[in-house]
Amino acid sequence: MLDLYPSRVKENPSITKRKDPVIHNSTSQDGPLNKNDLDFYEENGYLLFPNLFSSEEVEVLQNELKRNMDENKASNEPHIVREAKSDQVRSVFDVHNNDEFFNRLSSHERIVNIAQQLLGSQVYINQSRINLKPGFKGNGFYWHSDFETWHMEDGMPNMRAVSCSIILTDNYHYNGPLLLIPGSHHYYVQCIGETPENHFEQSLKMQNIGVPDNDSINWLLEKGGRIDSATGPAGSVLFFESNTMHGSNSNISPLPRSNAFFVFNSIENKLVEPFANIAPRPEFLANRTNIKPIEPKSFDLTKKAFALS
Amino acid sequence: MLDLYPSRVKENPSITKRKDPVIHNSTSQDGPLNKNDLDFYEENGYLLFPNLFSSEEVEVLQNELKRNMDENKASNEPHIVREAKSDQVRSVFDVHNNDEFFNRLSSHERIVNIAQQLLGSQVYINQSRINLKPGFKGNGFYWHSDFETWHMEDGMPNMRAVSCSIILTDNYHYNGPLLLIPGSHHYYVQCIGETPENHFEQSLKMQNIGVPDNDSINWLLEKGGRIDSATGPAGSVLFFESNTMHGSNSNISPLPRSNAFFVFNSIENKLVEPFANIAPRPEFLANRTNIKPIEPKSFDLTKKAFALS
Repeated sequence: MLDLYPSRVKENPSITKRKDPVIHNSTSQDGPLNKNDLDFYEENGYLLFPNLFSSEEVEVLQNELKRNMDENKASNEPHIVREAKSDQVRSVFDVHNNDEFFNRLSSHERIVNIAQQLLGSQVYINQSRINLKPGFKGNGFYWHSDFETWHMEDGMPNMRAVSCSIILTDNYHYNGPLLLIPGSHHYYVQCIGETPENHFEQSLKMQNIGVPDNDSINWLLEKGGRIDSATGPAGSVLFFESNTMHGSNSNISPLPRSNAFFVFNSIENKLVEPFANIAPRPEFLANRTNIKPIEPKSFDLTKKAFALS
Repeated sequence: MLDLYPSRVKENPSITKRKDPVIHNSTSQDGPLNKNDLDFYEENGYLLFPNLFSSEEVEVLQNELKRNMDENKASNEPHIVREAKSDQVRSVFDVHNNDEFFNRLSSHERIVNIAQQLLGSQVYINQSRINLKPGFKGNGFYWHSDFETWHMEDGMPNMRAVSCSIILTDNYHYNGPLLLIPGSHHYYVQCIGETPENHFEQSLKMQNIGVPDNDSINWLLEKGGRIDSATGPAGSVLFFESNTMHGSNSNISPLPRSNAFFVFNSIENKLVEPFANIAPRPEFLANRTNIKPIEPKSFDLTKKAFALS
């Protein structure tokens, strides 16, 4: 397959134009998003919906997150990621496959319908996780485009995926919210360095390959004109395009941050062999088997699963 | 001398009430600050004046900062502090003593009159520095009360000092601005741990003694109700009380931060022997010789010094 977005091959970084549409064959007739929403996403590469989930729903989601993390407390399976300096569980991956509640959540029409509209097709989950980031000593995460990694290490052919972060704690400016460079999704930053095998074992904690250079970040910021922060109350939901440059600062505040995170990929954009010429990353980071389009479901999150018809 | 604020002696941290007034014998008749300003400072422990210096003055200040840092590029004197991972100068201390321009700046009536009013007496400079904090990889600095260190390691007897930070680059929420816990200056957090000799050599980079515990920070935040960020355009000036709990997150944005920093101490609060039973820190961190009250001066920063009468 033709590599539309080569990276990690040249000695010097470079910036090329995006080759895929941002919104794929959709109009405001095709889903819940209106023209303003679509225009904002096209221009800025993200959409933030304050209070898309109610406080009652947030309470359920927070409890389920804690329940899942408690269940995994003693596990040493690779999809459970812990804090470097303590034993605390920081992320549980693949929750749409290994947890009944989060499997249901991943099909909730309130988020799936938006993903379908943005990607102009049926969708499936390429990666999911729940995150609990501690206060006081919360580490930041440097600027990166998810797509660069998904393309090079997972074999995602096109920019036709969207990340959905359901924010489960209030996000303030000072507790390490996600920062985004508006408009950065229109450009592809070709990074330097060769990808080592099993790079993911290191890169989940701190990325050093697939990291954009300073000049490219400066250039994107000059184009975009500003840095936006995904702040908002618990229950807000952030959708951001696969190639939007994002990162976060550290968090010395006592206020921890938690979220549920789903990457929706177009059913027409299934993974092929990684473009970095390495073995594919594990299934919990990039689903490639048993791919089926999600059937969006309407249900009340605050009711037990057995109450469903 | 009686130690009003013991710290680093007990096995467990504790919080006591402040024993000094916040505003010392002053009213709105005594200086440039009005009643609202004084009330805000009394309640919150800081005051931020947007654009106290004009953009023309900021340009002069920025150039003088660069000039001074360039002059000190090759120096290996201890008052020049460099980045851990590069050779770049990060801070130059004692600029009110070793640099003609910053000596003049430290006597500018626009800042000295405010310090005098807050401290209710004549003032002198206890510590000064200019800072250039890089973008992309700027480190944060954990919560601390300056007074705790000044008391224990420098022998400052009372809470009767104020820090003045002249902000020389635009401070945004996302480039690591100073964070403050409003009202925290009313309480003294007694820290644990014993102070090693020459602790300052380490603590200028990362503090590990005199660091407040998590429970105390939580308690202060609950009392204060919020965290405030010192954001604002270049030329803004932040005054914050010696005991106000403050810190900063990291800065992944490309935008560096620079400032000129003066600690004004009351002439009635001169340093004695350190309360931690260690040798006093060097003069460049804590002035104790040739202390004379500052005579506030009115002059035009954008005019050369020789234009003064």
